[in-house]
Amino acid sequence: MIKTAIMGYGTVGAGVYRVLTKNREEITRRMEGEEIVVGHVLDLRDFPGDPVEEILTHDFQDILNDQEVKIVVETMGGLRPAYSFTKQLLEAGKSVCTSNKELVAEYGLELREVAHANGVNYLFEASCGGGIPVIHVLDGALTADAIDEVSGILNGTTNYILTQMTKEGQEFGAALKAAQEMGYAELHPEADIEGHDAQRKIAILSTLAYGKFISYKNVYTEGISCVDGTDIAFAKAVGRKIKLIARSRRIENGAYAMVAPMMIGRENLLYNVDGVLNAVQIHGNAVGDVTLFGSGAGSLPTASAVAGDVISIARSMDRRIPSDWSGETLPLLESEAVPFAFFVRFSGSEDEARALFGDISVVRVEGINEIGFTTSLMTEKELQEVRAKTEHIVKAMRLG
Amino acid sequence: MIKTAIMGYGTVGAGVYRVLTKNREEITRRMEGEEIVVGHVLDLRDFPGDPVEEILTHDFQDILNDQEVKIVVETMGGLRPAYSFTKQLLEAGKSVCTSNKELVAEYGLELREVAHANGVNYLFEASCGGGIPVIHVLDGALTADAIDEVSGILNGTTNYILTQMTKEGQEFGAALKAAQEMGYAELHPEADIEGHDAQRKIAILSTLAYGKFISYKNVYTEGISCVDGTDIAFAKAVGRKIKLIARSRRIENGAYAMVAPMMIGRENLLYNVDGVLNAVQIHGNAVGDVTLFGSGAGSLPTASAVAGDVISIARSMDRRIPSDWSGETLPLLESEAVPFAFFVRFSGSEDEARALFGDISVVRVEGINEIGFTTSLMTEKELQEVRAKTEHIVKAMRLG
Repeated sequence: MIKTAIMGYGTVGAGVYRVLTKNREEITRRMEGEEIVVGHVLDLRDFPGDPVEEILTHDFQDILNDQEVKIVVETMGGLRPAYSFTKQLLEAGKSVCTSNKELVAEYGLELREVAHANGVNYLFEASCGGGIPVIHVLDGALTADAIDEVSGILNGTTNYILTQMTKEGQEFGAALKAAQEMGYAELHPEADIEGHDAQRKIAILSTLAYGKFISYKNVYTEGISCVDGTDIAFAKAVGRKIKLIARSRRIENGAYAMVAPMMIGRENLLYNVDGVLNAVQIHGNAVGDVTLFGSGAGSLPTASAVAGDVISIARSMDRRIPSDWSGETLPLLESEAVPFAFFVRFSGSEDEARALFGDISVVRVEGINEIGFTTSLMTEKELQEVRAKTEHIVKAMRLG
Repeated sequence: MIKTAIMGYGTVGAGVYRVLTKNREEITRRMEGEEIVVGHVLDLRDFPGDPVEEILTHDFQDILNDQEVKIVVETMGGLRPAYSFTKQLLEAGKSVCTSNKELVAEYGLELREVAHANGVNYLFEASCGGGIPVIHVLDGALTADAIDEVSGILNGTTNYILTQMTKEGQEFGAALKAAQEMGYAELHPEADIEGHDAQRKIAILSTLAYGKFISYKNVYTEGISCVDGTDIAFAKAVGRKIKLIARSRRIENGAYAMVAPMMIGRENLLYNVDGVLNAVQIHGNAVGDVTLFGSGAGSLPTASAVAGDVISIARSMDRRIPSDWSGETLPLLESEAVPFAFFVRFSGSEDEARALFGDISVVRVEGINEIGFTTSLMTEKELQEVRAKTEHIVKAMRLG
């Protein structure tokens, strides 16, 4: 028997309890007969009548001091007190699995080192892409590849909003309201809308992919609040969709990492990712493109990933699970220096556009008093130089 | 240093050598400094001027008797002598990784048991879906889920042919010829065309997914040689594509496993899998749908999977890598007893079709002297009963 504890009995924590109990038979079979039991659930609240009532505690010390507890699930979210609890548990020789992307993005490196120094594990499959097993794939499967790109739709809220704007013709504000009514967006949705959630996730995934540290603070990030109906209409006119793309890529002269709305073409599998679905695309020099689709959020999908980590640790007691996460920092290019093709909305004449951008193919959309066109590959810096020459560039969006 | 050997220096074997040497830096970093070297390459042929010339041997005993060799790659294909070589190596305490789906489907269970009895590992990520890390996902990530479906496009040759028929309007024979000219189909393509390749793969994946043995011999299998231009035209008319689907699923009264051409709708992510791309969809009761896309064949993608297995073993020396593969057999329903919606091509009148199938919505395609419609859910057996009443059912194809 392996005794575990869950800290934080919210959406994900309750899901972990449910998965570990509901799927006890499958899990015990995969553990070759050894049972995984939840011994404590830590939460400030009471849950009268809930199945966890008898194992509920309000006191972290109950978990920390229970010598039998070997694996702790941290589904509290936020940095405090999750950071201090996690560190104390690891120092006490208990492994920890988490869905807490803020904590992993901020302190993951340190906590992983503390874990290893104490002969235990710190795993966080659920922190990126919910139920999509992308960290297992990066850390455990694509280990023979030199990875040169990780790209994905890592935030379900923004993808739902962009899908609504595309399918229903809603403007951003209305689509956000719909997402809030459906429970897909929070009352204070800034972390999602402004791209900060995706920023943390791509930083974590890129660090694992390249084996060098990328701080989320260095990931250039734009949100989707500036995307409007005209952008959507132009995207449709050129057979594309606007998606909030989180991407890191090794290119000729370095590497970059960014989160930004991009226009995606049909040939890209991410084009098909609608609603709250998430997807991650990994490119390795041997395997080529591997793309993973799944639920990026939700109680049970996220819980599946956390519980999977519990099982990975339970199968590897007293053994460090390998991971390619080093303290060495990967230097990143300034986003301004990275070449992209841009889709430009232009309020001037076709002739003026051609004088500025060369041989372009112009798109018009009924009812919109602008023209649109795609530039050849250029950097944001080069685009800024063109901007200095004209007042007619309404907006420019990267092609993904 | 961990010494390995490669048996079979064909497309995949040469790819494994290339990946292990080209990506030495990444691999050594992920091995935390321990190098993986290839000590022997076994092949009947000579390769003058090739980098492996100096380590080439024609004698299996050179590998078997080299005490330093801990991991052997088997990329010979076929059952003989691969089976006997693999068994001898495992008994000698060497781990084996393979891309050989025939061998795994036929003797995988026995070889895995021999491996475990000798404290070593037998891994076969590359046997299903080439570079797609589906076995890692099943065995290592989705371990907290009760899996109830594995479904995929697991054969690139047939998918290429069906894609050509759909996009270029080619008939089967011409599309097969094109595939042969492109190197996507073999001169004797029966194993692909008749579904036997996909049959072995779905048997292996299903065994891992449900933790009970499914023999490929019990997987009901239809190939694609009977798919014609009229089927394709009708599929287009109802917004679907025909794909060779390999699927196992737990349903109310049991489980089934089959390989058959099916009409797939746009809402299914497999609809987007064109050309030689492969994809696998796994459904778990917690995680929901997880879909993986990637290269199902090719030298380097397959080699990436084999080399990834080499690294998994190298990281777990003297430790059994867990896998949910038991000797207990999963009983399967007869394919005739599994309900599907069918797309029926019918040479009789609309009235007759309605009299036989109830309230259907009829599709007509210009130039085709038949009508088409989708039935409600029914079993093949029920369909046969209808067939007995009319001679006008030209063909019936499952909706996927």
